[in-house]
Amino acid sequence: MDSITVTLGERSYPITIAAGLFSNPASFMPLQRGDLAMLVTNDTLASLYLEPVRSVLEQAGVIVDQVILPDGEQHKSLAVLDQVFTALLQKPHGRDTTLIALGGGVIGDLVGFAAASYQRGVRFIQAPTTLLSQVDSSVGGKTAVNHPLGKNMIGAFYQPASVVIDIDSLKTLPANELASGLAEVIKYGIILDYDFFVWLEDHLDELLSLDPGALAYCIRRCCELKAQVVAADEREHGLRALLNLGHTYGHAIETHMGYGNWLHGEAVAAGMVMAANAARRLGQFSDEDLARTRKLLLRAGLPVSGPEQMAPEDYLPHMMRDKKVLSGKLRLVLPLGLGSAEVRTGIENNIVLASIADCQD
Amino acid sequence: MDSITVTLGERSYPITIAAGLFSNPASFMPLQRGDLAMLVTNDTLASLYLEPVRSVLEQAGVIVDQVILPDGEQHKSLAVLDQVFTALLQKPHGRDTTLIALGGGVIGDLVGFAAASYQRGVRFIQAPTTLLSQVDSSVGGKTAVNHPLGKNMIGAFYQPASVVIDIDSLKTLPANELASGLAEVIKYGIILDYDFFVWLEDHLDELLSLDPGALAYCIRRCCELKAQVVAADEREHGLRALLNLGHTYGHAIETHMGYGNWLHGEAVAAGMVMAANAARRLGQFSDEDLARTRKLLLRAGLPVSGPEQMAPEDYLPHMMRDKKVLSGKLRLVLPLGLGSAEVRTGIENNIVLASIADCQD
Repeated sequence: MDSITVTLGERSYPITIAAGLFSNPASFMPLQRGDLAMLVTNDTLASLYLEPVRSVLEQAGVIVDQVILPDGEQHKSLAVLDQVFTALLQKPHGRDTTLIALGGGVIGDLVGFAAASYQRGVRFIQAPTTLLSQVDSSVGGKTAVNHPLGKNMIGAFYQPASVVIDIDSLKTLPANELASGLAEVIKYGIILDYDFFVWLEDHLDELLSLDPGALAYCIRRCCELKAQVVAADEREHGLRALLNLGHTYGHAIETHMGYGNWLHGEAVAAGMVMAANAARRLGQFSDEDLARTRKLLLRAGLPVSGPEQMAPEDYLPHMMRDKKVLSGKLRLVLPLGLGSAEVRTGIENNIVLASIADCQD
Repeated sequence: MDSITVTLGERSYPITIAAGLFSNPASFMPLQRGDLAMLVTNDTLASLYLEPVRSVLEQAGVIVDQVILPDGEQHKSLAVLDQVFTALLQKPHGRDTTLIALGGGVIGDLVGFAAASYQRGVRFIQAPTTLLSQVDSSVGGKTAVNHPLGKNMIGAFYQPASVVIDIDSLKTLPANELASGLAEVIKYGIILDYDFFVWLEDHLDELLSLDPGALAYCIRRCCELKAQVVAADEREHGLRALLNLGHTYGHAIETHMGYGNWLHGEAVAAGMVMAANAARRLGQFSDEDLARTRKLLLRAGLPVSGPEQMAPEDYLPHMMRDKKVLSGKLRLVLPLGLGSAEVRTGIENNIVLASIADCQD
């Protein structure tokens, strides 16, 4: 059983990674006999994991309440958040309750915000069931719900008491969602760790066939890398921005195509190739590194170019609305070879347009 | 111009107290020329203060947006909170915006929570306009909205960037709301500061006639006392509980009578006399101190007994639902003479009943 610690002073917490954790009562520490917990999941996952997790907790003497939310990004709303508060108050749950988020990024973000704001903050355990949420949203403390006028606009920085990653949950994950998670995995190699990039080149097939040892190492390494970044920059003033490699291009694809048509990781994969092309044109990324990046993404089943119906000019208006734009000039995360990256300011539009066109040849 | 600092490490902030602050652009520091701000108030206060404050900010070069909410505790809800988010996103306001809460406790609590959660936290300035909010909610960082199943159940601990207390705003406050604020003022003397209690005995008439010097000293002293308590115990694990003197009895009155029929301070005043009687029966509060407490509250125009229609037995079920109840025995804040208090556990019901009956003679 792998375990790492996210170091944030008195808000430090452990991430445990192994197969079979959802069948082991010890996984859900610090819950103890006699504690009250609220298990929150969505209607898709409920049929797969709700009863097993509930029964394991009850065997350990935890009093388990539950609420099942509708599945999907469109339900990451204040109205659905209120359903969680209503369920908590109906029992009622006191300040000493624990919320357990059993699901992917939507459940994790929403339940995390519910935990941050119920009675001004209660304990929160994350049990992420998608590769994307395991390597991304389980570290960093970003919680949120969407508003009709903007994604993730209402939320809090709030850390869980622990994160429980049962690798077996990936067995029920659709292939395109596994690939979407791999885009974020590959991102960590590009921006922070050349050795991990090489490891991914060597072990991608094992990850795709859900080899437990390879998955455990991979998820652990991503969590370690993100934990280092977050410990150094919890509120995203500097270093943490590197985690957005490919995201400015990717958000343009997601927004233009309508949420749900391109998975987040698919859009980020295409966006990383575009960023790599921009870096190549600025003389800081070699043709060879670009070829290796493209090859690894393709092997993972990910796109290396944007949607055919989007011209380079279609990206710019979306990209200019990015939070990183300053005085009308783009700021982009660009790789500096494999294993390091920088935030670069004042990039001319013609470089951006060319970096997108490069992917359409 | 009086100014004190609430000391909370990097979240420390100033409270400025004087007449005429709302007419002085320097009051709303750290806002600067070119900053964007969202001024939030209610429809009662809007006709009194919105235009003057807006025009002073605009003179100082601040870009001012505004949202006017319905007045009243019943509007301290998630739905009204969402109105603030919608207004912020329509402009749109970015992470560098500043929310200004212009109003009493309802506005302060709701806008504080909006600031805590909009884009995971933006800057927040409090301009409290009631004596109660000036001496109570402007220090401590408690923000919240109500849920139909419970008061203040959804919120955050979030500190303002500054608090601006314009004493002139009390000129438009109804007399019973001024008295309600004085109940909390007198509470600080009883639980923490005998000298301040004596000062109140000597200067109450000046406070009632809104003498600016007396008001400024009084508000400053209350903020100092609360700031000391909060700095020592931000998350209410110990010392901060003393601030609840009279509140367990008082909440029983408010709940039994229906919110709005007894003002919060009125219920707390009666509750403090009941707590003083319980302390007297337990041998830790003298008849003389009780008489001085009753006399000061009466001079302030406050009740020293509960509603005639409530029998002592009517209090207990409400009091047993208090968050401080442990294993079926009440915990109460009790005075230890004038100027100090303690949280006392395991108080028998017959003492509680007698302490209420004492006030009905």
